[in-house]
Amino acid sequence: MKLNILGCYSATPRTFTNPTSQVLELRNHLFLIDCGEGTQVQLRKNRVKFSRIKHIFISHLHGDHYFGLVGLISTFRLLKREADLHIYGPKGLKDVITLQMKLSDSWTNYNLYFHELTSKDSELIFEDDKVEVHTIPLQHRVYTNGFLFKEKEGERKLDMAAVLNADIDVAYYRKLKQGFDVENKKGIVIKNESVTLPPSPPKSYAFCSDTAYDEAKIPIIKDVDVLYHESTFLEKNENLCEPTKHSSAKQAATIAKKANVGTLILGHYSTRYDDINLFKEEAQTIFKNVELADDGKVFEF
Amino acid sequence: MKLNILGCYSATPRTFTNPTSQVLELRNHLFLIDCGEGTQVQLRKNRVKFSRIKHIFISHLHGDHYFGLVGLISTFRLLKREADLHIYGPKGLKDVITLQMKLSDSWTNYNLYFHELTSKDSELIFEDDKVEVHTIPLQHRVYTNGFLFKEKEGERKLDMAAVLNADIDVAYYRKLKQGFDVENKKGIVIKNESVTLPPSPPKSYAFCSDTAYDEAKIPIIKDVDVLYHESTFLEKNENLCEPTKHSSAKQAATIAKKANVGTLILGHYSTRYDDINLFKEEAQTIFKNVELADDGKVFEF
Repeated sequence: MKLNILGCYSATPRTFTNPTSQVLELRNHLFLIDCGEGTQVQLRKNRVKFSRIKHIFISHLHGDHYFGLVGLISTFRLLKREADLHIYGPKGLKDVITLQMKLSDSWTNYNLYFHELTSKDSELIFEDDKVEVHTIPLQHRVYTNGFLFKEKEGERKLDMAAVLNADIDVAYYRKLKQGFDVENKKGIVIKNESVTLPPSPPKSYAFCSDTAYDEAKIPIIKDVDVLYHESTFLEKNENLCEPTKHSSAKQAATIAKKANVGTLILGHYSTRYDDINLFKEEAQTIFKNVELADDGKVFEF
Repeated sequence: MKLNILGCYSATPRTFTNPTSQVLELRNHLFLIDCGEGTQVQLRKNRVKFSRIKHIFISHLHGDHYFGLVGLISTFRLLKREADLHIYGPKGLKDVITLQMKLSDSWTNYNLYFHELTSKDSELIFEDDKVEVHTIPLQHRVYTNGFLFKEKEGERKLDMAAVLNADIDVAYYRKLKQGFDVENKKGIVIKNESVTLPPSPPKSYAFCSDTAYDEAKIPIIKDVDVLYHESTFLEKNENLCEPTKHSSAKQAATIAKKANVGTLILGHYSTRYDDINLFKEEAQTIFKNVELADDGKVFEF
């Protein structure tokens, strides 16, 4: 599981900071999460292969989370993309994008699927044989979802020394990985556990931006390996959290602690602060395992 | 007259090139012309003061000419702008912008005026006591206008030695600049021409992007001091001009020559070429006074 932060500052793009966007690599998927203005250039700078992005998740329709989407869709067209593209985001997103395509008379030559979200409850929005993606309803000034990415239980691993020793035909390896007992070349039943090892524990990542402090999401993100939680403000400006429906570093840490997550990544910093290390310091008074997102940073878990 | 090129490459924004946007400084106005994705960051990098921009001109609704507009409008709001903002562009632009403001529930706290264009003939769209702006209908795949910026005739200049010698009261200086004859302190009528000099010749700038080769615009841009004309292609790809409704460097130079302009600035280069100097070389076989636009370049005239 690899997380590439393309942008993690709130509000306006500036010379050296970018609005929210990140790429999560999970079981060969490249999931793009949010898409502020300039995301396509950030993708290039971070050498992310455009064609591998097949699913884009938009948390909400504030500009710093999606103004780069229409340009990315348009660039995919100019690059003669053929693969389908799935976009998950709040109702209204399809209208905005299609209106701009209509006015420019520039329709995509690839299939574009909008999955518009309206539910206030968590729902499963993507699933294949390797991963699941669920929404995480968040409390913000407009309709907003975070996203929970979960690996499914993987296949068992072959203990090759034991497998060879048991004299099992290679044709049965697939069944072994799937957990079945098999017969060896002499017709003797071999217990699966005797020749395989358990799969790696499935990993999970929760993206929560933007949101006020809200414990309602804790059951959904409980025990995730990694939680990205916005922390727009430091404690001295905590009075701004309620009117703007944002969180402070300490509030993010409190959620991380109560949800028993592995690692907390902070981001969505207000650009009023010169030193983002203060976010980490404040959060660590409550929850120890804190990392700071920053544009261009890559986390591997 | 100062022209700051923020971006001048066609199609997709890339790590080191930006889509079309430029700032024209003319008689204390800062006119923003086109606004591709990333323009607000380019404005910052080029240290253009946001608050001085009061008029934005959008040539057409292809993304590389306006996808940065909604973000700029939104940033103006976050920066607590109070001054009015006037936007001139094709019909449809208002719908795109207001739909996005509605979905984000983020209305501007300053007055935003849309001047939507639909005419296929050149029209006067802005005028004050110093400058005029006219549309230049262009031939492209969608409805497109270039823009002609013209200084008005300025005031006459005082020939101070002659003025003092003629013993004219300072109260009459204003009338002298306006071209009137005045009486001196002894009641003698002083001929205006004897104590003033003609005003500097008014300057003019024509922006023409994007457009196929089209001589219909020549009467409108005749004799301008500076013409920015798109040159998407080199001669070897001239076959692409007609289907895409773009121009080659030679075609741009032919228009410059027939319109008898002072200086031709080329831009809107296709990103397929590594060396933009080839555009200048090809154009100069037809018209001598050619300059190359490039991101961050400033021309003073």
